[in-house]
Amino acid sequence: MHLMRAAVMRRVGGPEVIEVERVPVPETEDGESLVDVSFAGINFDDLERRAGDGPPPELPAVLGVDVVGTRRRDGRRVVVLMRHGGGYAQVATADDAHSVEVPDGISDEQAVGIFEQGATAYGALTLAGRLKPGETVAVSAAAGGVGHLAVQIAVALGARVIGIASTPAKRALVAGLGADEVLQPTNLDEQLRAVTDGRGVDLVVDATGGDQTRELLRGLAPFGRLVSYGWRTPEPGRGTISVTTEELTDRSIGCAGFWMRHVVDNRTLLRRIADHLFRLAARHHLRAHIDRIVPLDQIGAAHAAIAARATAGKVLVDVNRET
Amino acid sequence: MHLMRAAVMRRVGGPEVIEVERVPVPETEDGESLVDVSFAGINFDDLERRAGDGPPPELPAVLGVDVVGTRRRDGRRVVVLMRHGGGYAQVATADDAHSVEVPDGISDEQAVGIFEQGATAYGALTLAGRLKPGETVAVSAAAGGVGHLAVQIAVALGARVIGIASTPAKRALVAGLGADEVLQPTNLDEQLRAVTDGRGVDLVVDATGGDQTRELLRGLAPFGRLVSYGWRTPEPGRGTISVTTEELTDRSIGCAGFWMRHVVDNRTLLRRIADHLFRLAARHHLRAHIDRIVPLDQIGAAHAAIAARATAGKVLVDVNRET
Repeated sequence: MHLMRAAVMRRVGGPEVIEVERVPVPETEDGESLVDVSFAGINFDDLERRAGDGPPPELPAVLGVDVVGTRRRDGRRVVVLMRHGGGYAQVATADDAHSVEVPDGISDEQAVGIFEQGATAYGALTLAGRLKPGETVAVSAAAGGVGHLAVQIAVALGARVIGIASTPAKRALVAGLGADEVLQPTNLDEQLRAVTDGRGVDLVVDATGGDQTRELLRGLAPFGRLVSYGWRTPEPGRGTISVTTEELTDRSIGCAGFWMRHVVDNRTLLRRIADHLFRLAARHHLRAHIDRIVPLDQIGAAHAAIAARATAGKVLVDVNRET
Repeated sequence: MHLMRAAVMRRVGGPEVIEVERVPVPETEDGESLVDVSFAGINFDDLERRAGDGPPPELPAVLGVDVVGTRRRDGRRVVVLMRHGGGYAQVATADDAHSVEVPDGISDEQAVGIFEQGATAYGALTLAGRLKPGETVAVSAAAGGVGHLAVQIAVALGARVIGIASTPAKRALVAGLGADEVLQPTNLDEQLRAVTDGRGVDLVVDATGGDQTRELLRGLAPFGRLVSYGWRTPEPGRGTISVTTEELTDRSIGCAGFWMRHVVDNRTLLRRIADHLFRLAARHHLRAHIDRIVPLDQIGAAHAAIAARATAGKVLVDVNRET
């Protein structure tokens, strides 16, 4: 039996439940391939799964939903989305429908750094948000994994971009990405009107929820849309919000949702978006900010840093390195 | 003092409160012009005002929010939106910002027939709905004043169009307008999936409300939008509905509102849309269905017919004719 190193959780709980073990290399079924992983992404959803929020993982579990590496059957470099996890490991089982080849000239780190979050940003901006050149778009959590890519993609698509970020360091990062304005997350309706001559913005892409989402909605111009691609449920006042057709009609605004699953389920669409992202990256219009790359045995510490909102951009695991 | 004939209401109530009187020609202020009216539109909102639903009109009142006629100061033929009524009269006070010249080759009846409802349909489809060629759009109340124009505009914009109408006669009208499918308003979610290979539709423009709007929402494809441009509040189960960002995100769909006021308030936009509508009309891609033209003293009867949903398309008043 072939063995590999993986970060395994045998119970739900705090960051300490993730431990490196020697486990069998997974088996593949039809339509799947083994991928020798170089880097895996650590995402906010992983923290919720680890803590047992939402549907409980089947234990023992290996978390991690995005990896980059070499596909064994053809030696191709691929990025892979894994709907059922398995990324924190030296070898991953990749569904071919959810694997995309990485063009030369784009590093492993950048490929996995832009794929999942970039597709989310691109989908929220274009598929749900239907952004047009010349429109003004506000991006909440603009230094975050999705947000910092949304800023760059919106700039590349010809929009005027307003980034929102919570700390001076994050705001500096966002300004450096090409945002035309960078705001603190307070009184956002007033601030959005102040920077648009009172008009409001055409599009908001948002993953905050609750009171802040309500403020952002109030900052929309007529025919403006807010696209929610998530919210931080555990915190009071930051959950899902409710809107009525009456309030939407009174202001001629819209509210939409975006879930990556609807891109992942559509192979043509996933590939088309990936091509677009890689093309932007090749032209230096899109670059993932890699906050840190941790070794396989430091995933728990990385989870803690993400939970403390001490990271910006993408956090990666080098699955072949241990301290 | 110059006098004119007008249909005046001196109290709120049933259709009988509207009576023809001889009244002074209105005075104009800066930015306004007198228009010798040929035809005025009768709209559903007029019925609500007459009955005293919503904000009460200042009495005595002359209802009617859209007219066509000749502007006295320059002899030009214009269509006019009047936010504060005054249309059921031989002479109307036209805000120049809300007046648009009618090109030669478009009759008075067609001009007033397509202007207000056509701009609503066009705005709901394009500004709020952001329709793209090749998309599938469902139009509720597709034989109605806005609906029957929305069907034609959506066809002209390159969409596949599904009309929804309540009677065989109305469905025959909708089929004749170029709709690809015509449905009855029952089990709409299932029907919309049935005619789209299970996928659902990309856009719905809707003015029903309540349970039917919920059914239509369930018939949206991923990245689909429902645009509400009104609802029939007095009837139970047909009012405004509420949606959460969670249900929108779960299905990657959107819900938007459209109110003509946001077009009327933007002179450039109003003019651009009118130009587009008149161009479609000149090319025979858009034609208002004029249900009937009533004389000035039969407006009450026309209100009763509209309330009974016995009309399709547009109802006009010939303000210079009496029985």
